[in-house]
Amino acid sequence: MENSKAILLLHCPNQEGVIAATTAFIHDNNGNIVALEQHVEELEKELFMRIEWELKNFIIPAEKIGEFFQTLVADRFKMKWRLEFNNKIPRIGLFVSKYAHCYFDILSRYESKEWKVEIPLIISNHDKFEHVAKRYNIPYYHIPITKENKKEAEQKEIQLLKEHKVDLIVLARYMQVVTSDFISEFPNKIINIHHSSLPAFPGAKPYDSAYKRGVKLVGATAHYVTEDLDAGPIITQEVIPISHKDRIRDLKRKGKNTEKIVLAKAVKKHMDHKVIPYKNRTVVFA
Amino acid sequence: MENSKAILLLHCPNQEGVIAATTAFIHDNNGNIVALEQHVEELEKELFMRIEWELKNFIIPAEKIGEFFQTLVADRFKMKWRLEFNNKIPRIGLFVSKYAHCYFDILSRYESKEWKVEIPLIISNHDKFEHVAKRYNIPYYHIPITKENKKEAEQKEIQLLKEHKVDLIVLARYMQVVTSDFISEFPNKIINIHHSSLPAFPGAKPYDSAYKRGVKLVGATAHYVTEDLDAGPIITQEVIPISHKDRIRDLKRKGKNTEKIVLAKAVKKHMDHKVIPYKNRTVVFA
Amino acid sequence: MENSKAILLLHCPNQEGVIAATTAFIHDNNGNIVALEQHVEELEKELFMRIEWELKNFIIPAEKIGEFFQTLVADRFKMKWRLEFNNKIPRIGLFVSKYAHCYFDILSRYESKEWKVEIPLIISNHDKFEHVAKRYNIPYYHIPITKENKKEAEQKEIQLLKEHKVDLIVLARYMQVVTSDFISEFPNKIINIHHSSLPAFPGAKPYDSAYKRGVKLVGATAHYVTEDLDAGPIITQEVIPISHKDRIRDLKRKGKNTEKIVLAKAVKKHMDHKVIPYKNRTVVFA
Amino acid sequence: MENSKAILLLHCPNQEGVIAATTAFIHDNNGNIVALEQHVEELEKELFMRIEWELKNFIIPAEKIGEFFQTLVADRFKMKWRLEFNNKIPRIGLFVSKYAHCYFDILSRYESKEWKVEIPLIISNHDKFEHVAKRYNIPYYHIPITKENKKEAEQKEIQLLKEHKVDLIVLARYMQVVTSDFISEFPNKIINIHHSSLPAFPGAKPYDSAYKRGVKLVGATAHYVTEDLDAGPIITQEVIPISHKDRIRDLKRKGKNTEKIVLAKAVKKHMDHKVIPYKNRTVVFA
Repeated sequence: MENSKAILLLHCPNQEGVIAATTAFIHDNNGNIVALEQHVEELEKELFMRIEWELKNFIIPAEKIGEFFQTLVADRFKMKWRLEFNNKIPRIGLFVSKYAHCYFDILSRYESKEWKVEIPLIISNHDKFEHVAKRYNIPYYHIPITKENKKEAEQKEIQLLKEHKVDLIVLARYMQVVTSDFISEFPNKIINIHHSSLPAFPGAKPYDSAYKRGVKLVGATAHYVTEDLDAGPIITQEVIPISHKDRIRDLKRKGKNTEKIVLAKAVKKHMDHKVIPYKNRTVVFA
Repeated sequence: MENSKAILLLHCPNQEGVIAATTAFIHDNNGNIVALEQHVEELEKELFMRIEWELKNFIIPAEKIGEFFQTLVADRFKMKWRLEFNNKIPRIGLFVSKYAHCYFDILSRYESKEWKVEIPLIISNHDKFEHVAKRYNIPYYHIPITKENKKEAEQKEIQLLKEHKVDLIVLARYMQVVTSDFISEFPNKIINIHHSSLPAFPGAKPYDSAYKRGVKLVGATAHYVTEDLDAGPIITQEVIPISHKDRIRDLKRKGKNTEKIVLAKAVKKHMDHKVIPYKNRTVVFA
Repeated sequence: MENSKAILLLHCPNQEGVIAATTAFIHDNNGNIVALEQHVEELEKELFMRIEWELKNFIIPAEKIGEFFQTLVADRFKMKWRLEFNNKIPRIGLFVSKYAHCYFDILSRYESKEWKVEIPLIISNHDKFEHVAKRYNIPYYHIPITKENKKEAEQKEIQLLKEHKVDLIVLARYMQVVTSDFISEFPNKIINIHHSSLPAFPGAKPYDSAYKRGVKLVGATAHYVTEDLDAGPIITQEVIPISHKDRIRDLKRKGKNTEKIVLAKAVKKHMDHKVIPYKNRTVVFA
Repeated sequence: MENSKAILLLHCPNQEGVIAATTAFIHDNNGNIVALEQHVEELEKELFMRIEWELKNFIIPAEKIGEFFQTLVADRFKMKWRLEFNNKIPRIGLFVSKYAHCYFDILSRYESKEWKVEIPLIISNHDKFEHVAKRYNIPYYHIPITKENKKEAEQKEIQLLKEHKVDLIVLARYMQVVTSDFISEFPNKIINIHHSSLPAFPGAKPYDSAYKRGVKLVGATAHYVTEDLDAGPIITQEVIPISHKDRIRDLKRKGKNTEKIVLAKAVKKHMDHKVIPYKNRTVVFA
């Protein structure tokens, strides 16, 4: 396990000794800490922490770290935590509908190896981009959605995503609302891009609404999908300046640039194990 | 009238010949056009134009330009227009309550002559900043507002603003809703700064709401005041990135920088006669 | 020629009557002006103008407009001008070396029809991305460059670009300096992306230099290629904030997002006939 | 010492055990750690750390912490460190010449108590802003600088700054180069604002140079002053988009907004003890 590292993400009620106990757990067992960030949330007094260490000389075997940490540290401080490893290649389930820009952008990051990821399957409610998937030898499942078949269609999607051992679902301008049944199978593992700077202009057609309101900025928001539509924990968001000269089609065109960059940044942060969702907010470490 | 220039701002239903007729009106009468911008709005097919020319050899006297333009050009195209002159020094009525940053910022632009303006009076519902006004020998009217006296207080304000021949009212974080009676006296002449990127977080305490929602951007919006609270035509808006590390008081502190700059930019655009409000939007020329 | 429009880009010494004469030329001949922007440069007193009109009822045939304009207007004001038509599909010659992000980004805009362009050929000094070109049935010319063969290789490139009737050459992170012989064949028709905010960090390895200098921003610059390396007229540039946490490889990764967006914006502006280069600067209309 | 906190800023060659030893030093002596950030610099393998803890129950007296830390921890790891306390009010020596915007901005943050600082003196090579200093009852020393008297004038400044026990010197568009004799008295305690995005356009008249080069961005850089002019460690920098429409005087006007905000952000970071200069770079904690 040369060069391999463990990453522990945790949160608990703020109290004395959390940092010292956690660093001691690693250091005393011969782990070399290479990064540590912590944060105390002000309103709810919750402490968040991300700690990364080299496993080379660590005396606890990788598969036992969780159990030992739970007993020796987490129980004492009532921590919620998850443990990740830097050498695990993430497996992305990619969803797309009829807009290509985020889809092409993610596939080009994959092809150029800018991202070290697997994309074991693509799911779409349209067949429009099947030919693109073929280039990459990625299975493309065309699953049309209607009011009538939605429950059934989602069950099929869930099964496919599980068969392909997907870690993360990316909705690359997927134009369907996913139900709570679907979401509950992949909690905090579905990232969506919404084409406005939420909470402004939720729902459909945000660029039309932005134009009509006469705002001087449009934006995009990447967030974890929750049951409340467009209200999940925000990971990244950015805006771009616009002017009266920009027609609705200009907003859509300019917005595409922002959408694909904002989504890519959120997916990257998630894959680097730098995001802790908490209620409807996120801690996103640097 | 050496170096003096006229600025004509107009809009009308889009139709052939508007630009040619307007430029001919100026050129044929020996006006030297120094700037021209036009814009056609897509949804309502409205044409907007700003044209600026030197008056030195213009054969129509300044005080007659409006009348001649109405008869010779505007009537034909059903234009709405206003005429401004670059050598008229704008007179600002400055409103403030308890937050100082926009107030100090505007006064420092005034004192340093970055802005060539007169500030003939300051009005506040608090007496907190009277000592600051004294430095500049600007009359400071402390007019407390209660539910009971609001109508009467506003009448007093209107009278003062008229006596001081104010061209523009700037609400520099003035913490009172102004009524439609007040607004109707100064249509499109009241600029307010709201401390969020509207339409997100209208109303009171936007920074608290932004924190609770977990957004990754906060912003500020300068707009003309209309009867619909926080829904008037937007002139300028900007955002700044924030992170989970920013507590509510950090948002407020960081937001101050944005608020004062956004408000100053809007006031400058208005004073340069570069803004045409239209319905609840604006055309803001470059 | 329904819906077709002409676009005239011109500049000349600033003088009275230019706008009026130009608009009259169009209007008096039954052209409907749909957009007009002008600008007077302060140091050299040069006037720039972009005017766009519908050809539907224009009484001068498209192929004669240039000749008539030269005689009736341009000669009088000593104008330099070019005439473009909105229904001409631009033909891009795409150059790439070993970095894929700008290349993939442009191809995806082409494939998704976000851009209405032809890409009749791709030229590279490496064969790395030939398989990508094949997907699109675009001829890919692998032309290796050495010190010895450079002159000859460029002659071959020039011949290919002319055979394919290319209007615009886009250097999508092409890692070769092109010579003045090459440039003089395509004046103001070669757009390059440099991975810094010029004039900071010209030359090779700008991200390494930025890291060593400890700047808090990195950027990208799209510019027309001229004989002075990295000193041609800038079309678009943008920066992104970085921090001490960003290692050189993070700058490179983050920079890619900016590079591809900045290059795409410049190419779009050029294709919309909104850029007038003038000495080593540009006028870029909105 | 209720609510008082200590802040330790340190760096040392990267090695195992630094974080654990430092956190143990604080925790084992009953200090409650409230913030910790660390960073490992990639090229020189230097580790940086900022750790903040409550002193309430800390068993080492405040005045002894340095000595104990040196012996128990710093010697072992060859650390360079400094210790700060959150309840020490910083004392700023403010320098100004003929441009007012940064000067007014800082004074308004002081007056409105946005910043909890003392400004015991103002020094200027001009008498232009003495009347402003009088408002605040701040001694204003007018010390003209000529080639001949520079050495002597700086000695007088050094003496005044020491008499007034200044912690930080802010050059608010002070238009004189300070000599290495002066700098060596206040290492890493002099913050300057340069009106460009360094390393672009060092030296005088950056806006003129930016205009002539035709860049599409202008910016400002706040940095610690070192012997190399405009080459000291950068703390903060920002840019704003400009266009061909912006004349040199527009760049200067727009740049003022950026300059004052960038300088204020740098001073705030320094006062919050979040900056570690290292060679000609900085680590700026969040």
